[in-house]
Amino acid sequence: MTTTTSLPSMMVLGATGSVGLQALDVAREQSMRVTALSANRSVGEMEALAREFKPLACAMADAAAAADLRLRLADTGIRVYDDVCTMIAETEGEIVLNSIVGRAGLEPTLTALRTGRRLALANKESLVVAGDIVMAAAREAGQIILPVDSEHSAIFQSLGAGRREDLKKILLTASGGPFFGRTREELSQITVAQTLAHPTWKMGAKITVDSATLMNKGFEVIEAVHLFGVTTEQIEVVVHRESIIHSMVEYNDNSIIAQLGVPDMRTCVRYAVTYPARVAGDVGAIDWRTLGSLTFYAPDMDTFTLLPLATHCIDRGGAMPAVLNAANEVAVAAFLDERLSFTGIMDTVAATVAAMPDAASCRSLDEIAEADRTARRIAGEPIR
Amino acid sequence: MTTTTSLPSMMVLGATGSVGLQALDVAREQSMRVTALSANRSVGEMEALAREFKPLACAMADAAAAADLRLRLADTGIRVYDDVCTMIAETEGEIVLNSIVGRAGLEPTLTALRTGRRLALANKESLVVAGDIVMAAAREAGQIILPVDSEHSAIFQSLGAGRREDLKKILLTASGGPFFGRTREELSQITVAQTLAHPTWKMGAKITVDSATLMNKGFEVIEAVHLFGVTTEQIEVVVHRESIIHSMVEYNDNSIIAQLGVPDMRTCVRYAVTYPARVAGDVGAIDWRTLGSLTFYAPDMDTFTLLPLATHCIDRGGAMPAVLNAANEVAVAAFLDERLSFTGIMDTVAATVAAMPDAASCRSLDEIAEADRTARRIAGEPIR
Repeated sequence: MTTTTSLPSMMVLGATGSVGLQALDVAREQSMRVTALSANRSVGEMEALAREFKPLACAMADAAAAADLRLRLADTGIRVYDDVCTMIAETEGEIVLNSIVGRAGLEPTLTALRTGRRLALANKESLVVAGDIVMAAAREAGQIILPVDSEHSAIFQSLGAGRREDLKKILLTASGGPFFGRTREELSQITVAQTLAHPTWKMGAKITVDSATLMNKGFEVIEAVHLFGVTTEQIEVVVHRESIIHSMVEYNDNSIIAQLGVPDMRTCVRYAVTYPARVAGDVGAIDWRTLGSLTFYAPDMDTFTLLPLATHCIDRGGAMPAVLNAANEVAVAAFLDERLSFTGIMDTVAATVAAMPDAASCRSLDEIAEADRTARRIAGEPIR
Repeated sequence: MTTTTSLPSMMVLGATGSVGLQALDVAREQSMRVTALSANRSVGEMEALAREFKPLACAMADAAAAADLRLRLADTGIRVYDDVCTMIAETEGEIVLNSIVGRAGLEPTLTALRTGRRLALANKESLVVAGDIVMAAAREAGQIILPVDSEHSAIFQSLGAGRREDLKKILLTASGGPFFGRTREELSQITVAQTLAHPTWKMGAKITVDSATLMNKGFEVIEAVHLFGVTTEQIEVVVHRESIIHSMVEYNDNSIIAQLGVPDMRTCVRYAVTYPARVAGDVGAIDWRTLGSLTFYAPDMDTFTLLPLATHCIDRGGAMPAVLNAANEVAVAAFLDERLSFTGIMDTVAATVAAMPDAASCRSLDEIAEADRTARRIAGEPIR
């Protein structure tokens, strides 16, 4: 797909996932050049995308899948890697959109920044697990990170309307999840099917559970601390059921700037890859005549305990957020597997965090990885 | 009041009026240097302000009042003028806050721009009556105009979060006034006392009536066309009863940026005179836990006919907005004097505009002034 557009070229990591496919939709829509694609092991989908977008290179995280793809694309001249980071380093491309799921997204994030690319970041773990290291890499490279999450995108956009030194706090909006208003007793009876039904945002199962427990909002607090250089005291979570206001910032003059829109990830993805331009796409505008009312509530921190636990973990620092994330991954997997109750997720994560106070002093990637492994072991022990 | 602040020095025109006094509150609060003050004829208040702020100069629009003030301030060394424009031209001061009421504010607006001052503009008539001429003066002087109106301030702030070329439209919010939802029949019975009771924003009587008829919102449409270089098709009026969102802009990507806050003019005044800084003042923050819900409606253009009439007038151009303003001034004065009904205001203004189609071709200040006089005569004829 050769083009004459002035929009930047991009690499899409995690191209066959939900956000990756939306990024490729934007690339189609805006005729953006895609120079590289990566996926985990979906060889068939990857071949189709490679033939459509004609990138310079592709990478499969799974070595057998890489070998398979190499054979399939033998007629194309597209280089096939079995390592995403090597592909990034050896391939041109102005923006790296990282929508890899999980911890595997961290090294590509660091490689993208260290090789001087602008990072459009959808991989939460990069910041949750190793935010200090990632932000230091961005500073050293002189690169900005464009968040793809709707909340952080809204905050990033709202920060354009004022000076950073005048920022007072961030108002991070939360839909409240499908179980807003429920008691702890009611939550203990929640099933997997109830949890996965009707999310506001179309997402994978893991993040849909995280949205229901408010763990996802907790991760977003951690991400916001890193992305915007604020303290947790400067972040207020506001429950906003309608998901029309995607987040806000409050300045020293108590003036608030907010970003609003129809809840559709494509707007955030498009903004991240076309910034500073804002280009028209196929997401509609808000119709004020039919919008009805926008409501706001305080989150129930006593019931949804993972949200204050996230604040505790980032306040403690070091590998505590990595421990939180690792324990949560184990617990959510067990819940989806019907080996753990909904409130069991909360209890398992809390117990793991409580068991590892020393993780706060971990600094290096190796130490963080070790804390992560320990957290997974501790979290997994009581689950059958 | 000598200070060491880095905030700019300012002249406050219309210093004894509602906005002027709030600007002086901000000057006190932020220890800003006030170099000049003007008022119409309130000599006593002016003397007190002059003794407090120790400006270089004062002006009274009324010649007898100027002579009186000159005597009263003979011991101070403060220069006293009987002409605001001469005072502006001969006195230092980085910002001119123009909160003069009515057409008398136009020449000071032009003088401020032509002498290279930043203009913080609260005088609506400058833009409603002679927007093309004022904006041309700003362009020639390379000066920005900082709007003091809450709506235009919100738009100005929201435009900071995107590029001007990506602006799609302006969403101008309206409280809807005290008679939102009423029928034309009901409006015809409205009294002066009902109109002046409980406005959302603390304002003078004239503008409170204009808010109730939505004429004020119509003027704001005209101001927005000039200030932000948009067409009326790019302005959508959205009724928002709670006055928390002060206005919004929608970009090409259908993303909306909004400015929110407690409805208090002091925030807008403070922003206009301290921009680009945002400094803390004594206006509180929104409390999301007690905010309740925000609602949105389309305005009733069939009942509140002055709003679409304003769009018609700015679309026609020339002196049509001046005619609208002049007829409205006459009609509102008659209403406050109980010589005209509430709906009579609308009818009088509409009839005057309809009677003067040729006003659209007026261009110069002299032609506009002539159209203004004619409009006042025509509007006044049927009123007793």
